[in-house]
Parts: sequence; structure tokens; C-alpha cells
Amino acid sequence: MSDIIKAAAELLGQLRSNKPLVHNITNYVTVNDCANAVLAIGASPIMADDIGEAVDITAISSALVINIGTLNHRTVESMLAAGKKANELGIPVVFDPVGAGASRLRNETTRAILSEIKVSVVRGNMSEISFIAGLNANTKGVDAAEEDIASGDAAQAAVALAVAEKLECVAAITGATDIITDGKRIAAVSNGHKMLSDVTGTGCMTTALVGSFCGAGRDAFVAAVAGIAAMGIAGEIAFENAGSKGTGSFHMAIIDAISRLDEKILFERARINETYR
Amino acid sequence: MSDIIKAAAELLGQLRSNKPLVHNITNYVTVNDCANAVLAIGASPIMADDIGEAVDITAISSALVINIGTLNHRTVESMLAAGKKANELGIPVVFDPVGAGASRLRNETTRAILSEIKVSVVRGNMSEISFIAGLNANTKGVDAAEEDIASGDAAQAAVALAVAEKLECVAAITGATDIITDGKRIAAVSNGHKMLSDVTGTGCMTTALVGSFCGAGRDAFVAAVAGIAAMGIAGEIAFENAGSKGTGSFHMAIIDAISRLDEKILFERARINETYR
Amino acid sequence: MSDIIKAAAELLGQLRSNKPLVHNITNYVTVNDCANAVLAIGASPIMADDIGEAVDITAISSALVINIGTLNHRTVESMLAAGKKANELGIPVVFDPVGAGASRLRNETTRAILSEIKVSVVRGNMSEISFIAGLNANTKGVDAAEEDIASGDAAQAAVALAVAEKLECVAAITGATDIITDGKRIAAVSNGHKMLSDVTGTGCMTTALVGSFCGAGRDAFVAAVAGIAAMGIAGEIAFENAGSKGTGSFHMAIIDAISRLDEKILFERARINETYR
Repeated sequence: MSDIIKAAAELLGQLRSNKPLVHNITNYVTVNDCANAVLAIGASPIMADDIGEAVDITAISSALVINIGTLNHRTVESMLAAGKKANELGIPVVFDPVGAGASRLRNETTRAILSEIKVSVVRGNMSEISFIAGLNANTKGVDAAEEDIASGDAAQAAVALAVAEKLECVAAITGATDIITDGKRIAAVSNGHKMLSDVTGTGCMTTALVGSFCGAGRDAFVAAVAGIAAMGIAGEIAFENAGSKGTGSFHMAIIDAISRLDEKILFERARINETYR
Repeated sequence: MSDIIKAAAELLGQLRSNKPLVHNITNYVTVNDCANAVLAIGASPIMADDIGEAVDITAISSALVINIGTLNHRTVESMLAAGKKANELGIPVVFDPVGAGASRLRNETTRAILSEIKVSVVRGNMSEISFIAGLNANTKGVDAAEEDIASGDAAQAAVALAVAEKLECVAAITGATDIITDGKRIAAVSNGHKMLSDVTGTGCMTTALVGSFCGAGRDAFVAAVAGIAAMGIAGEIAFENAGSKGTGSFHMAIIDAISRLDEKILFERARINETYR
Repeated sequence: MSDIIKAAAELLGQLRSNKPLVHNITNYVTVNDCANAVLAIGASPIMADDIGEAVDITAISSALVINIGTLNHRTVESMLAAGKKANELGIPVVFDPVGAGASRLRNETTRAILSEIKVSVVRGNMSEISFIAGLNANTKGVDAAEEDIASGDAAQAAVALAVAEKLECVAAITGATDIITDGKRIAAVSNGHKMLSDVTGTGCMTTALVGSFCGAGRDAFVAAVAGIAAMGIAGEIAFENAGSKGTGSFHMAIIDAISRLDEKILFERARINETYR
């Protein structure tokens, strides 16, 4: 019996009883799914991206999720201000560097966020986290480049470890296998289904779930593992229930599965291998 | 047989034949659901939030819905300009003060809208409408604070009446029981299902339905009751058809039920108690 | 056996193997559906509407879709800059003039886009394309005005031809029958279902599909026909599978059907009549 699986399941129980308020400054493509994913896992979402209130809303929240999927100068300012307020108050910040590497604006925003804000968790695909690591990455839009997916778990772990050490945070790379590390503990999550990449926003939803778990407990490593495993398990269940119907039904079934996830299902279905460095 | 139920059902018939154009200046989290709810009930949605066209679009619409779920300085300006144009032309304005009480920006915007624009209907949860009433409210993000829900129908009615009189409009507080009043007539709607709070935007959709009914008839009280009862009934039907599947399927089933609502279903399922002050 | 049907089916095969990156500068109402439609047909969506990155993202894309469903001054600037970059690099531009005719901002933006950018395809309803043709149009918001729908195929073809010649592009008018022309070839697509107008964004999704096909092959006429036929067929299949449940289920079933569309289904179900001028 794995300690990390037990810890993740317990954290789900805490999340469900605490219902943390999770502030999301995110993109307008997947924002509805993110809000519904946060509700489905048992937390309470709030979205506020104007500089006139981003700081106020952060101050009453239990976690802040910053997602750069659709950026503009107005929201970047809010991300930075909200992030600083979160740091000041000890509120965990989860960062999703969507499409980092794909444009100068995304690259510069990613650099600004990581230099001005202390993040608790950064989650992205191999391209995005490689950009942060300063490694070469083949970025093709916001989806994972296939070369990166193929490069395997060992390369992923190396990149995640480099970022975790550099930023002193939890770094998570999601892909065929998901790698999460805080620089000492390394978890490999084998849950998930490839159909998840056929629906937009499954990465954003994963990050929103990580934010929800971060709002429920102090260990950001466990929170990241729990959020990522929850999404992977939901993807598997959604595929079983609706995969043959098509990606629209599968999309709804993902939210269904998140909403019905409980400690028992998470505990039984999670496939997580934890190692220590 | 209740007169208000009959009036609400008849208004649905009118809405379906008139197909009013409903202008929504709303948030980017739930805007797609609002548009689909407006279409499902039989009206025609249009969303335009730039100062360059908000007034023009209002002028060709039968109702204006203002929702402050995600605010920014650009859209606040458009809300005020559109609202003034609606007042000038006698077009009903429906206002959803999402998260009023949660940030200074939301509070100031709410105050500005209510002081510069004559609204026909204001709809929110107990926290939000209490903020407007100037009473104390425990605001926890955009969802209803539980203390407020527990405070019961009598407290809700008192707050709604205070707001209806202060603003000379229809005030609606949705919760376990929904209270709608124009200061003289008071309707208590017992339809709905608690699972509605597990999907983001069900409040926004309710307001969009109220706007659709306002675009179809002159009595804003009947329109507010009809829109709120329609959403409650849709929630019940959605729960019967899809509640056990999870919140994703339930979400789609809400739109399904709105689209299949007719005068007969509304008449038979509406549980509305009307009293006079 | 129709050559155009064969060409459309073959282009779907190419699209599925090439997975072109499609940049969408679009509205926040239907953006999630557009992204999911692009993924469902087999392409890769990216949305970036800030002037700080719109040009960069266009430069790495295989097609650019510009949709004016919700406009603001910030995004109009990005649309123009991205469109010019696309022209410079020979990347096809697909334009959806949502609500053209309904406000001065939409009219001026439409004029600016068409005078500063060479578009490969313009797709809209009869009102919108008539506005572009400089003909009188009865515009009622963003949905097709019924008078226009009733005006029949001959009038549609005349308007489409006028626009195709004026702009030297492919002009497509969708309605009960869809008319697509490059000025020489004229295709009439009889696929589709009237329930498609009960879901917001089916027009936007159609344009996003056209953009996806444009990213997969050089003949914009074939791409427009393929995208429009794909959406029509998906609507028919969605109606068969979910139409009786309501518009929420139908909505999801549209995405399901797009994701399961293959060359065989497209070939067998497409009802396209091609004529030459």
C-alpha cells in the first residue's frame, strides 16, 4: 500500500469537507470547464482578472491558480499583483504556463511570473516545463509536441527535477506518464487516457484540480499528485462510460467522473509510483 | 389554481412566439451557458460588451441583462452606457450582482449601476441582495454563503422587500426557496434542486431566463417569477434524467429541460405561492 | 459520383494526418466549442488575441480564423495585425463576420478587415454576407433573419457570387441550403438540420472547421465545402442520436459526430451539388 496514494485519498476527504475557495486567473477558452471541475471536486471557484479586484479576491481565497492560456496585458498585470498578494499571505500559487515557448509574450510572462512570484506548483506538458528548465523544446501551440511525449519518463523526470530545484517548488509534467516532484520525492502517475488530449482544457482542468487540492492541505506535493491522479482517473472512467460516443460525451463524462470521485475510488484506481531521490 | 402560475405559463407562450432579442453583458465564465439557455427558452441571445457597440446593440434588443460575474473597467463602462440607453428607450434591464460584497470593484460597480440605471429586476443570492439592501452579509465568493441559506424564507422576504422598495423594482433572491417581490406581490417558488449549485452559472442562466421573459411581456414581476420557476423546474427534470450520472451530464440536462419546457409542463410543475403585502 | 464530394473526403484524410495548427481570434461566447470542434475534426487549435502575440502565433499556424462575434478595440487591432502577417506568409485567412450589419463597430471592423486583409474564405448567414455585398439586409442580432432564409437559393447564390467576385475569395452563405462559391464553381450543400440554430456557436464552429480544412489543403473552395458539409452531416447525426433529448444533449452530440466523422461517412452522407458558372 502506497503512502502517497493514501495521502492523496485523505486529502480528497479534507477538500470535500473544507470546500476551499479557489481563485483562478485563467483563459477564456476553458474557464467554464475549470470552474465546473473545481466544483466537481468539491471546492468553490471564483474568477476575477481585473486589477481592480484580483488582489481582493486572492486575499479571501485558499489558493490561486494562474493560467496563461489566453494572455493580455491587462490580465498579466492582475496575475502578478494577485500572485504577490498570495505570497504575502501564504496562499499557495499554482502556475500553468500554457504554450510557454510559443510566443514572446508567453515567454516573457512566464519569466516575469516565476521571477516575481514564489509558486508552490508549476504544471505543464514537457514542452512547457522544458521551456522553464531552459532546455530546448519543440512547441507546437498549446498541445504537447509528440517528440516530447516520446522522449520518455527519464527525460521528464530530469526536467521536472531541474525545475523543482531551480524554483524550489513542486514541478509536474503531465503526459503519457505524469511526473511530479518537489526535488526530493518523485511520483510517477500512470492514470489517464489518451483521449484526454482530444478535449480542450483537460490540462487547464488538471491545474485547477491541483489548485483545489492545494487549498485543502499544506503539502503541495501531495496536492499536485492528488489533482493529477484525480484527473487521470476521471479520464479513465469517462472513457469507459462515454469514449465510444465521441469527444463531446467524453468531455461531459470527465466532469461526471470528477464529481463522483471519492476517497475509495481514488484509493483503488490510483496508479502512483513514488521514489526518493 | 394560481393566477401567477397561469400568467407565467402564458408568458412562456408569448416568449416562444415573439423570440425577443436579449442583450447580455455578462461574464466569460458562463456566457456560453447563458446564450444556450436564452436559445433553449425560445429567445435570441446577443452578447456585445464593447463601448463601441453596447449602446447600438441594446437599442435593437427587447431586454438587457447585466451580470458582473467577471468585471473589468472596459465592460463596466459598457454596462453603464447600455443601461442608460435601455432606460431611455424603455427596454427592461435585469441585473445580476454576482459576488456583490466580495470586492470593492464589485461593490462600487453595483452601487454605480443601481444609482445610474433604473433596473426592472435584480436577482441574486441572499448575500448579494443583502449587500444591496445594506444589510450585513457573509460573502464567500460567488456562491451563496450557507448561513444566509439557513436564515430562511422570512429573512429573505424581508431583504427582498427592502430592495424592491428602495429601488422600485422587482427583487429576487434565489436559494432553497426563491423569493420574488415587486414590493406588493410576493412569490415564493419552491422548485429547484440542490444539485443546481454544483454547476457553475446556474444563477447566471436564471438571470438570463428572467431577461428572456422580460423581453416577452410587460410585467417584470411575472417575468422574474417565470424565469426563476423555469430554471427550478429544469433543475428538477435534469436531476431526474441525469442527476445520478454526475454534474457534467446534469449540466447538459438542464439545457435539455429548458429547451423542452412548454406551457403545460411549467403549469403542472410550478410550485409558486403568491401573497400580497 | 461527385468530384467535389470525393475531394472533400480526401481533404478530411489529409487533415487527420497533418493535424494543422489553426489560430482562432474569436469571441468568448463560443470559443470553447470552436476549440473542441477543431480538435474533433483532427486539427490543433490555438487562441491568442493580444497584440503582443497574435502575430507570432499566426506565424506558426497553418490557418487563421477571424470571428467578430464579440469585438473590442483590443482584439480588432490583433485581428488586423494577425491577418496581415497571414497574408505576408501565404497562410489562409477565414473570416466570419458575425452580426455584420447589427452595429457600427461590427460594420466598420468588417470593412477594415476586408480592405486591409486578403481573405481566402468568408462565411456567414445571408444577412451578414448581404451586408458585405452591399445589399440590403434585415439583421436581427447574430442569427439569420427569417426573411433572408426564405429568400431562397437563387438569391443566396447571387449574393455569394457578388462577394466572391468583389473580394476574389470563396464566399459561403449557410442556411437551409448552404451556398459556397469561388466565383466559378458553385456548390450547394443540402446537409444540416434546423436544430443547429437552437445551439449557439454552430456558425462559429462551422467557420472553425472551414479554417481547419484550409490548414490541410490548398484549394479554399474544397476546404469551405468540406467544412460546411462536415458540420451539416454532424448536425444530422447529432439529431438522430440526441435531438429528442433537447438542445444540451444535441450540442454535445454535434461534437461527438465531428469527432467520429471519417472519409467514408463524409463521402456517403454528403449531399453536394456542384455547378459551374
